[in-house]
Amino acid sequence: MQLMRLGPAGRERPVVRDEDGATHDLSALTTDIDGTFLAGNGIERARDALAAGRLPRLSAEGLRVGPPIARPSAVICIGMNYAAHAAETGAAPPAAPVIFFKHPNTVVGPDDDVLIPPGATKVDWEVELAVVIGQQASYLDSPADALAHVAGFAVANDVSERSFQMERSGGQWSKGKSCATFNPLGPWLVPADEVADVQSLGLRSWVNGEPRQASTTADMIFPVAHLVWELSQYMVLEPGDLISTGTPEGVALSGRFPYLADGDVMECEIDLLGRQRQALKGR
Amino acid sequence: MQLMRLGPAGRERPVVRDEDGATHDLSALTTDIDGTFLAGNGIERARDALAAGRLPRLSAEGLRVGPPIARPSAVICIGMNYAAHAAETGAAPPAAPVIFFKHPNTVVGPDDDVLIPPGATKVDWEVELAVVIGQQASYLDSPADALAHVAGFAVANDVSERSFQMERSGGQWSKGKSCATFNPLGPWLVPADEVADVQSLGLRSWVNGEPRQASTTADMIFPVAHLVWELSQYMVLEPGDLISTGTPEGVALSGRFPYLADGDVMECEIDLLGRQRQALKGR
Repeated sequence: MQLMRLGPAGRERPVVRDEDGATHDLSALTTDIDGTFLAGNGIERARDALAAGRLPRLSAEGLRVGPPIARPSAVICIGMNYAAHAAETGAAPPAAPVIFFKHPNTVVGPDDDVLIPPGATKVDWEVELAVVIGQQASYLDSPADALAHVAGFAVANDVSERSFQMERSGGQWSKGKSCATFNPLGPWLVPADEVADVQSLGLRSWVNGEPRQASTTADMIFPVAHLVWELSQYMVLEPGDLISTGTPEGVALSGRFPYLADGDVMECEIDLLGRQRQALKGR
Repeated sequence: MQLMRLGPAGRERPVVRDEDGATHDLSALTTDIDGTFLAGNGIERARDALAAGRLPRLSAEGLRVGPPIARPSAVICIGMNYAAHAAETGAAPPAAPVIFFKHPNTVVGPDDDVLIPPGATKVDWEVELAVVIGQQASYLDSPADALAHVAGFAVANDVSERSFQMERSGGQWSKGKSCATFNPLGPWLVPADEVADVQSLGLRSWVNGEPRQASTTADMIFPVAHLVWELSQYMVLEPGDLISTGTPEGVALSGRFPYLADGDVMECEIDLLGRQRQALKGR
């Protein structure tokens, strides 16, 4: 089972997708897939309702796919969490997770257009495993406690403008991470208990059909459980919060590929979590 | 007129304070002082209702003072925006505004306790002029357009843990800025049109009654209008978003004063915007 949100931006309807790929309206259970729903055992209730045949079919045909969760109260990103990516940017692997935020209003649907900001010259892609928090997490005792606080996983593209991020920023990355549309998310939220091993998922990206990134979450420096535990030492993680867990090597910042331009197409994919596709649009 | 929120955390009631300091219930106009209220000409409607005697008195006695706005969708902070503070931290004045975020769940009332995180050794104070956005701002043409998008101003204390911020962070500051309770805000939101010159406000802080910071917003490197304009080039600012505009010299990071400890008391004050007071509590 996957959770989705279908419909126009800002008016998405909550939906579950069954193992045959058929979509079912979840509106009778909740108005949205948000922190309140997730913290209130919503995924289990959705699964039960689906199994009992209580969710009416809702054709996805012609409907926009929205981000699979409502606006999070925070989008927390981890930098340099794959050693080969740290190396391609010229940085040493970090001794502890590196944390920055994106404005939560950057989150858009998985196939929505990505807008090139005025003045941008270095728009870059970053496929990332996104973690959605299901239960409040604060000062967790150990990484072993962490995954019980995770609702599920999704594909994110942590779109970045490198000149804003690194050349005009005084070293604080958020300036190049928060432009409108810079966080495509989805298509699905896959419940955590349906991912047998989150540290063995292949993740890949393409630009105009050519491969760019191809790695696995096994190569994370700090695995998901470590990240959630450590983040909980520095902030209160809330149901519905989104954590992007870092990107592997193969981005334009490496110098191996050109930056993105108007008309280019990005695609990102993670095993079990689906595939997304965005067209770049100039302004 | 000032806007306030009074009552227990999470259940504050919207209030206006008249020029005699008397408080009046705003509940008939709005359930909360949030982005929707501010964008919908709420301050003008509150002012009219107060002038017409349509807001019943509500005694503030015995009521906790909450933050004067509901949870913002983002807390955006400006680093190193006073030259003397940049110098005391060992940094050069920035060539452009330095941007980082705090988790929005750090916002608490102006007199709420500030909790010392486990393992903290360098908890520090930062009095700051906080700007609350009233109208969506995206790609503003010039700083001259900026203040029309501001709803009002408030006092903020951008509490920081310097070892988290600088020694364990890989250089990204948010790790030492997002602990629970690290953003006391208030007591008041003062409407922008009641502040004749936002660049001539004195701002001060104290620890245990001893002066620490004493400066003026005239010393900002990038004034408020410039900040709002420039931020709008890098993100969409939304009604209710909070911008903390940087702190002047006189923090513990300078080496001139000890860091904070259990039982210490911080106070922060800005001309016209009121005064706040927090006790530090160990865990």
